[in-house]
Amino acid sequence: MEHNKLLEMLKAAPGEYISGEEISRRLSISRTAVWKQINKLREEGYEFEAVSRKGYRLVGSPDKLEEAAIGAMLQTSGFARKLRLLDVTSSTQEAARLLAEEGAAEGTLVIAEEQTGGRGRQGRMWFSPPHKGVWMSLLLRPRRPLAFAPQLTLLTAVAVCRAIRKVSGADAGIKWPNDILIGGKKVCGILIESAGEDEMIKYCIAGIGIDVNLEPEDIPAELRSVATSLKIESGRHIDRAELIAAVMNELEQLYKLHEEEGFAPIRLLWEALSVTLGRRVTVWGGRGDISGVAKSLDESGALVLQDEHGSDVKIFSGDVQLG
Amino acid sequence: MEHNKLLEMLKAAPGEYISGEEISRRLSISRTAVWKQINKLREEGYEFEAVSRKGYRLVGSPDKLEEAAIGAMLQTSGFARKLRLLDVTSSTQEAARLLAEEGAAEGTLVIAEEQTGGRGRQGRMWFSPPHKGVWMSLLLRPRRPLAFAPQLTLLTAVAVCRAIRKVSGADAGIKWPNDILIGGKKVCGILIESAGEDEMIKYCIAGIGIDVNLEPEDIPAELRSVATSLKIESGRHIDRAELIAAVMNELEQLYKLHEEEGFAPIRLLWEALSVTLGRRVTVWGGRGDISGVAKSLDESGALVLQDEHGSDVKIFSGDVQLG
Repeated sequence: MEHNKLLEMLKAAPGEYISGEEISRRLSISRTAVWKQINKLREEGYEFEAVSRKGYRLVGSPDKLEEAAIGAMLQTSGFARKLRLLDVTSSTQEAARLLAEEGAAEGTLVIAEEQTGGRGRQGRMWFSPPHKGVWMSLLLRPRRPLAFAPQLTLLTAVAVCRAIRKVSGADAGIKWPNDILIGGKKVCGILIESAGEDEMIKYCIAGIGIDVNLEPEDIPAELRSVATSLKIESGRHIDRAELIAAVMNELEQLYKLHEEEGFAPIRLLWEALSVTLGRRVTVWGGRGDISGVAKSLDESGALVLQDEHGSDVKIFSGDVQLG
Repeated sequence: MEHNKLLEMLKAAPGEYISGEEISRRLSISRTAVWKQINKLREEGYEFEAVSRKGYRLVGSPDKLEEAAIGAMLQTSGFARKLRLLDVTSSTQEAARLLAEEGAAEGTLVIAEEQTGGRGRQGRMWFSPPHKGVWMSLLLRPRRPLAFAPQLTLLTAVAVCRAIRKVSGADAGIKWPNDILIGGKKVCGILIESAGEDEMIKYCIAGIGIDVNLEPEDIPAELRSVATSLKIESGRHIDRAELIAAVMNELEQLYKLHEEEGFAPIRLLWEALSVTLGRRVTVWGGRGDISGVAKSLDESGALVLQDEHGSDVKIFSGDVQLG
């Protein structure tokens, strides 16, 4: 593409200004074309200083993910060993679903720098701007009954929460069933989509969206009171490749642990990271609101509430509000 | 289409021969074109007698499904009230899945006269010739946890088995989990495909394939020892529209029963129709073969076997061989 020549030219002269006239002459394009290409590069995350009579200077490049950087930090045997790294896609879930239907192997990971139609639970929009987040979907093919899928939801939350704590140092916790919060604000959403045949899982796609290096101004105004990023909370830039590898390492380890020892150890880890347990919560579910104190997870992964009459109520699904 | 004029002409002269020459003249087409159209109609299931110097006579029309005939016998409030009746499709499961993704309502039913790529469990081919079977897929949107899907498999088997018994009089039974047998031979296969989001079902598609009016010679030779049809077993032609309506009536009734009273009454009905319980069976599953005597269904829908050591083993999935 033409604008890569422009980029090469500016990169070859670090710290120096090159005039629009010179660029126009050297690339044999019009001044308007130069201006258009600079704008295109800005959209991709490159930053320029433009000074009149001096020209353009490259002052910042986007934080692009590279497959080699992720691979170097993987300790997995299968997870993320097949990687599709996309610049932009409508939804990594949809891209992974198509790969699943084509027969892609367990552990295939789809990552996008940007999603134009990212989605969360119940068809809600998931804001996924370029280069600042981790937007990814992992294909899993557990040979298990469908009842495993809810446990996979909780298992994934544990893995992501542990990876976030490790890489960013932030005090992240899990809100039932699978939101990751820091200081009460959401920093990550997880969505497990399953395809089943009769009583068995055909495949699951674990969608993980983490707000990594978003600045406060990158977060839509209406979400600023409820959403945050790892950079905002930790005060430093986070290496996304390191975070992706850490999530995959944790996830494969817990997945194997579940294969060997079942849900019990996962449940203990989930309970230890939970910000829901012990709190008064309200759940909006299919059967109306239920309020109570969150007591524990049961062995299937349901949330056990103690209601105002002192009875235990099991919650299988719904949106939880703390406090 | 041109060949409908030919059909109208032959239908307008019941029992009479019309010469190829006369057809050619009245439709202003060549004799070769007449012959091609006759062949096309034969492929669609029409039967002709052709006698030299006399011409063609219509002696049989295909048994085509009509929406009005099915609708007249429905006693449902929602099931099959939205109907897509297709002449031919690759797979009604796939057609129903696309409708589900587009937001089609619960109870939407896709029926095809013929499937070119019909499939059963584990991607196996399902032979689906035109006009002689019931090849259909029902869209369901239960607001339930994923663990409901295996129960839906058993519920569907009960509904189909009851409808077959009612309409054909044949002594049909259920082989775990969801094959319908008559005299030890398979007459119907059921496949429930589910899409889940986190712990909840997004939708299920209940695929039902019944060999209705197939003659022995319609069944592929390699399947004749294990497959049969309602016509072969009952000795008479079965009205497919009546059978479709009966399946929908039974299915909606049981689905509502499950909503009100849970799995317990479905389980009793399943056990009463089972040809598996009390028999020595071998199950090929993910963890190797298991042999034992089939004792019962558990409350989740798993098959309980008593193995040779007298221990109970729960089977969640697999292929069962009786005896």
